[in-house]
Amino acid sequence: MEYRVLGKSVLKKDAAEKATGRAKFGGDFLFPDLLTGKVLRSPIAHGRIVKIDTRRALALPGVKAVVTHEDTPHQLVGRWVKDRTILAWEQVRFIGDPVAAVAAVDEETAEEALQLISVEYEELPAVFDIADAEGPGAPLVHERLAKYECESAHFHPKGNLLAETHLTLGDVENAWAHCDAVWEDTYRTPVVHQGFIQPHEVTAASDASGRITVWTSSKAPFIVRQAVSQGLNIPMSRLRVIAAAVGGDYGGKGTAQIEPLCVLLAMKSGKPVRLALTREEELSFTFMREATITRLKIGARQDGALLALQGQITYDTGAYCDLVGHLDMSCVLLHGPYRIPHVDITARRVYTNNSPRGHMRAPPAPQPVFALESHLDMVARKLNMDPIEFRLKNAYDEGDRMPTGARVANPGIKETLKRTQEFLREQQKKALEPNTGWGVAACQWGGVPITASGASRDRRSAVSSAWVKINDDGSIVLLTGATESGGGPLTILCQIVAEVLGVGYDDVSVIASDTDGTPYEIGTGGSRTTVRVGNSVRQAAEDARRQLFDLAASKLKVTVGDLVTVGGRVYERGHSDKGLSLAELASLAINERGAPILGTGAELRRAEVQAGKDEENWLDAPMHGAHAVRVQVDPDTGMVTVKDYFACHDVGFAIHPQNVEGQIQGAVATGLGCALYEEVITDKGRSLNPNLSDYRLPTTSDVMPVQMEIVEIPSRTGPFGAKGIGEPPIIPVAPAIANAIYDATGVRLTQLPMTAERVYMGMKGKKG
Amino acid sequence: MEYRVLGKSVLKKDAAEKATGRAKFGGDFLFPDLLTGKVLRSPIAHGRIVKIDTRRALALPGVKAVVTHEDTPHQLVGRWVKDRTILAWEQVRFIGDPVAAVAAVDEETAEEALQLISVEYEELPAVFDIADAEGPGAPLVHERLAKYECESAHFHPKGNLLAETHLTLGDVENAWAHCDAVWEDTYRTPVVHQGFIQPHEVTAASDASGRITVWTSSKAPFIVRQAVSQGLNIPMSRLRVIAAAVGGDYGGKGTAQIEPLCVLLAMKSGKPVRLALTREEELSFTFMREATITRLKIGARQDGALLALQGQITYDTGAYCDLVGHLDMSCVLLHGPYRIPHVDITARRVYTNNSPRGHMRAPPAPQPVFALESHLDMVARKLNMDPIEFRLKNAYDEGDRMPTGARVANPGIKETLKRTQEFLREQQKKALEPNTGWGVAACQWGGVPITASGASRDRRSAVSSAWVKINDDGSIVLLTGATESGGGPLTILCQIVAEVLGVGYDDVSVIASDTDGTPYEIGTGGSRTTVRVGNSVRQAAEDARRQLFDLAASKLKVTVGDLVTVGGRVYERGHSDKGLSLAELASLAINERGAPILGTGAELRRAEVQAGKDEENWLDAPMHGAHAVRVQVDPDTGMVTVKDYFACHDVGFAIHPQNVEGQIQGAVATGLGCALYEEVITDKGRSLNPNLSDYRLPTTSDVMPVQMEIVEIPSRTGPFGAKGIGEPPIIPVAPAIANAIYDATGVRLTQLPMTAERVYMGMKGKKG
Repeated sequence: MEYRVLGKSVLKKDAAEKATGRAKFGGDFLFPDLLTGKVLRSPIAHGRIVKIDTRRALALPGVKAVVTHEDTPHQLVGRWVKDRTILAWEQVRFIGDPVAAVAAVDEETAEEALQLISVEYEELPAVFDIADAEGPGAPLVHERLAKYECESAHFHPKGNLLAETHLTLGDVENAWAHCDAVWEDTYRTPVVHQGFIQPHEVTAASDASGRITVWTSSKAPFIVRQAVSQGLNIPMSRLRVIAAAVGGDYGGKGTAQIEPLCVLLAMKSGKPVRLALTREEELSFTFMREATITRLKIGARQDGALLALQGQITYDTGAYCDLVGHLDMSCVLLHGPYRIPHVDITARRVYTNNSPRGHMRAPPAPQPVFALESHLDMVARKLNMDPIEFRLKNAYDEGDRMPTGARVANPGIKETLKRTQEFLREQQKKALEPNTGWGVAACQWGGVPITASGASRDRRSAVSSAWVKINDDGSIVLLTGATESGGGPLTILCQIVAEVLGVGYDDVSVIASDTDGTPYEIGTGGSRTTVRVGNSVRQAAEDARRQLFDLAASKLKVTVGDLVTVGGRVYERGHSDKGLSLAELASLAINERGAPILGTGAELRRAEVQAGKDEENWLDAPMHGAHAVRVQVDPDTGMVTVKDYFACHDVGFAIHPQNVEGQIQGAVATGLGCALYEEVITDKGRSLNPNLSDYRLPTTSDVMPVQMEIVEIPSRTGPFGAKGIGEPPIIPVAPAIANAIYDATGVRLTQLPMTAERVYMGMKGKKG
Repeated sequence: MEYRVLGKSVLKKDAAEKATGRAKFGGDFLFPDLLTGKVLRSPIAHGRIVKIDTRRALALPGVKAVVTHEDTPHQLVGRWVKDRTILAWEQVRFIGDPVAAVAAVDEETAEEALQLISVEYEELPAVFDIADAEGPGAPLVHERLAKYECESAHFHPKGNLLAETHLTLGDVENAWAHCDAVWEDTYRTPVVHQGFIQPHEVTAASDASGRITVWTSSKAPFIVRQAVSQGLNIPMSRLRVIAAAVGGDYGGKGTAQIEPLCVLLAMKSGKPVRLALTREEELSFTFMREATITRLKIGARQDGALLALQGQITYDTGAYCDLVGHLDMSCVLLHGPYRIPHVDITARRVYTNNSPRGHMRAPPAPQPVFALESHLDMVARKLNMDPIEFRLKNAYDEGDRMPTGARVANPGIKETLKRTQEFLREQQKKALEPNTGWGVAACQWGGVPITASGASRDRRSAVSSAWVKINDDGSIVLLTGATESGGGPLTILCQIVAEVLGVGYDDVSVIASDTDGTPYEIGTGGSRTTVRVGNSVRQAAEDARRQLFDLAASKLKVTVGDLVTVGGRVYERGHSDKGLSLAELASLAINERGAPILGTGAELRRAEVQAGKDEENWLDAPMHGAHAVRVQVDPDTGMVTVKDYFACHDVGFAIHPQNVEGQIQGAVATGLGCALYEEVITDKGRSLNPNLSDYRLPTTSDVMPVQMEIVEIPSRTGPFGAKGIGEPPIIPVAPAIANAIYDATGVRLTQLPMTAERVYMGMKGKKG
């Protein structure tokens, strides 16, 4: 199929605004009487609030509002698990739990006011380690958890265990006896931050009639609207949430973290309020990626066939859980894109008094896949097999059954592994430098039947809608609730509209992310925007085209089936001289029907499994990729330098190749940080490195260019065959590097980040 | 029919914002780098531009842009008649014609820059009087008029005559012989300003990608978008026009007067620009109500039956015409709501070198109706008949044929006259003060079959569309392109939504007047918002209700026909316990169909006359009213004081009675100003009184309370029977006062305004 607009790296719609620094972010909205908001947070990890006295703060000149739980409806909030409060009203559960907030004329006054609020706590014993949290007599993080409203059937709260899921196939216990190689190990990953440069910031203003507008750094304005509406009992019709430009999201800006507080301050003060987190707050108190412990045991036959996998992954969810209950996904992820007849996997979430946890790019995949793909390497070595041959032997083919029952459709796992193999063959012709090694790892993302996904049970997670307007001059406006979080989704959506309507890319403008002015959308994320939002946009554009054709057919006296739309004109195929321009048709629509053409589209994956329609039963088409990396390890310091990086991903169809490459390059950079540098270090719940000097994000001097290869095995459900790409490339980075370090040093690192110290200690231990 | 929300004077949606001074008008949008725009205008009334030199202005520090015609596409612009330019490129045609514009860091610098632009003109002979303009050898205002593109078939440009329309019935010339009373006179009306307090102001900003946002004082954002798009060759998809709060419109803010210039400055400077007119510019150069001369001759039989009417009305349209070509309407208006068998009316528009003319409340009615209703009084007196009895004898009944052929449907003329008669009977029981007199006058508005309306030929004038969104919490948002210009239309539209959907008025929010976020709408005006926009809103709400009922029927297993929606719940009639809330249904829609409920509606009156469907053939249902006024005339000074004012109007159904009363009170106040005080006085095209000291608007000390009576004879086409009310009440004010002055003094004033001086001179002339 030859496309005119798709498959081309057109100029991104947001490029000029961002490149010139003119884009407006959540804190860039000016008002003459704008106040600054600040949050007072709990200094203790667990305790009861005895008394809050705000009188001295209120008396400070320049303070316009002080709010405590008494200003909130006393109800639990949370997108999936309603386990937290806008402001603590009985207990605080982590160092940083919001207790009060102020709005004042400037930042200094607001800070001073925080000092003047006195809060009396009765301290309770706290727990910071997931092993302790499940131990006998452990302090309960949520005393009344059983009463909490959980939206998902996945949650079975019991003590500090929030949720647990099992995946079993065959008979693992008896399978070990048939294995020729068995490997067992335990893997640990730390808390990491999403790494966006713009901290959370939001501005809220209430008009005199009580209508509230919120400009937010969130990528999901409809989710924010829902959270503010539910948390503060404000009807959605009085709330307008606009996603301003987003300075990086990576999963951290998909739910309402500070918006309800900001709205509360705006309502209380009667003035516009800007609330922005400091870097210290970001790195201490926001919803970051969870720490995990994974125990894994895998067995295979001598011929390389995987026979059995037993695993348990436990996520430290902190004091509150802001994640969708995708423990089913964790099980599938720990299983990987491989045929394994005997499986016994448990995934668990445990509360502690650490700061709460949320989404980060590809949740909850990097942690189990670090374990799995490191582990496979060890099994392959035991079998003396090439690690790619080993994976290829076990990887899914078309029609294989997933452990959850659905059949695999159009998988890219083997093709990406083969391309990686070819790359490595070329590379291995070169001479090896000293202290270097190669590692590979693969990944599967989205390969979850909808029945096994937490998201699917709350079906709304799978909802997108779009409108395509044809203005009376024939120009096109796409309206979508999706947000430009940086990866270029709006550009791709415009390409789809242009392709369907037969106009140029520049003829399509996009209005996005405004709960009043754009259609309902669950938010940009989950590697679903091109695919799911794309489908709704394609439908909307096709609906608009159908209306254009209906009008044109009656005017031109031809049948709809013979019409084409090319270059902004609709005409009978082969008779381009006898046609009507989109401007003429748009005016006809207004003059003859009373309204311009509005095409609508809605995308919904149903949770009901449809027999015989396996491809319909995927939440998204499975996305596969394989990476290869060459590292050099300094034998004196343990410092790891990445020398070569190769990433191959199946994206179904690359609508915008440069965006695909950008996603891969960016995700590998983040994965590199998580593999080698990043860790939020805490002591009894208190962050010890909440700044960008001590929390070590990779910089331009750390990040290497990635050699990329794009595979296009079309999806059956994405628009024009497209699959997602936002998340997969972060997943295999850490295990690929771990495998390369092993290849270079013989040291198996099972804990992230793989700092120079840990590598050095590993090398020393091996020698010792 | 018992309504829950309709017919009640609920709190206006914009009340709090306006009352607290927090509403944002077109000039209230702040940017750190906001520039001030200023316009350089022609100092001569007619001339050729020889040379423009902007170099010295550009060199002035702080000047960021200077634009002349060279920065514009050289094309003619105008909504109905394309006869003007954004910036003059060959000729200037009135004192004030825009020649250049600047944007600078502040107002002083912008003013100084204007002084530094040198323009060399070659002056041409000018013409300021419509009689002169049609005389032999008159200078041509538009030398190349015949080439101009006129959108309406009404225009037959010839010399300085822009347009001419005739209405003939029967045989006037032979009819005079059968008349027992004949009266002939000539009436004159001056140029008047719409009288809004907020001058035109607009802010425009272009983003780095070239998308332009315009915040305007206009009530018609889609018209502004069209004008800017056409005038500057910008695709509509790159233009977002938002109607900010409007500080009074009264017809003067319905087309683009300064928006294209402001956008041009924003594009040239690359910065946001605010352009606001001064009061002097407002009262000198904007599109105000035209001066007219009307010759009228009417004959009647002794029994009071009108037999013949011959009239000619000529409008001085100034240098450019910004009005719809409703000369047909002028003919119908000069004919009035009366049966007259023999008619010969001509209506004409003539160009002069006066400033251009546009719409003002009830265009073009007050001028012909001043003549007609004054004249009828004189004929009644000749016949020695009571003026109301005389009108009642001739007034339309149901089914009468209009001169244009359509049948009169549900007229309110007789009922409003009778109520006025009753009022007068009560009043006349009181003792008469000295030097006082009573006058009455009636009016018809909108009583024009669509085939006879200029608006109908450009069918787009009759287009409204609306969307009703049901949010996922069941709250309702109405999206409309209509603008809150002060009369409360948005409030009424929300009442309609609440009534149809069975929710409370407060449960409905409205988002309005944003070309990107709200549906297409031609603009608030023409007394059509409640009626025409109201119909589209009713359709949209009914469409949303149908979708709610479809969902509910399938869930509740009942048939749609048995469902009702009351108090935010949908249930089977008689079984309110078994139902679903709107929140539940809205969530169902999202979860089962992938998108929230969106109801759409579109209103279009077709220009084709449909046989046998007379009520369908009206542009709007005819609106009728009758006024009675008692004045006292100071015999020493001629000063006229209004002592009592009574206004009775048929509004079909008063959806918001307080709004109806507000429209009547406000329109009578404006009518009073036009009757007694207001006139733009010019000398060779130069305004001599461009300030609010010398241009005498009525103040609170002039305006009397109006006694009002509302008649409700339902329209067959308006929502719930409603007819319009915005314009009719201004129409009869001047003739009612003229008739009262005659009653008090015996002086017939045929020229507006009826200043103390003119009344005094009349009394003196009568004595002398």
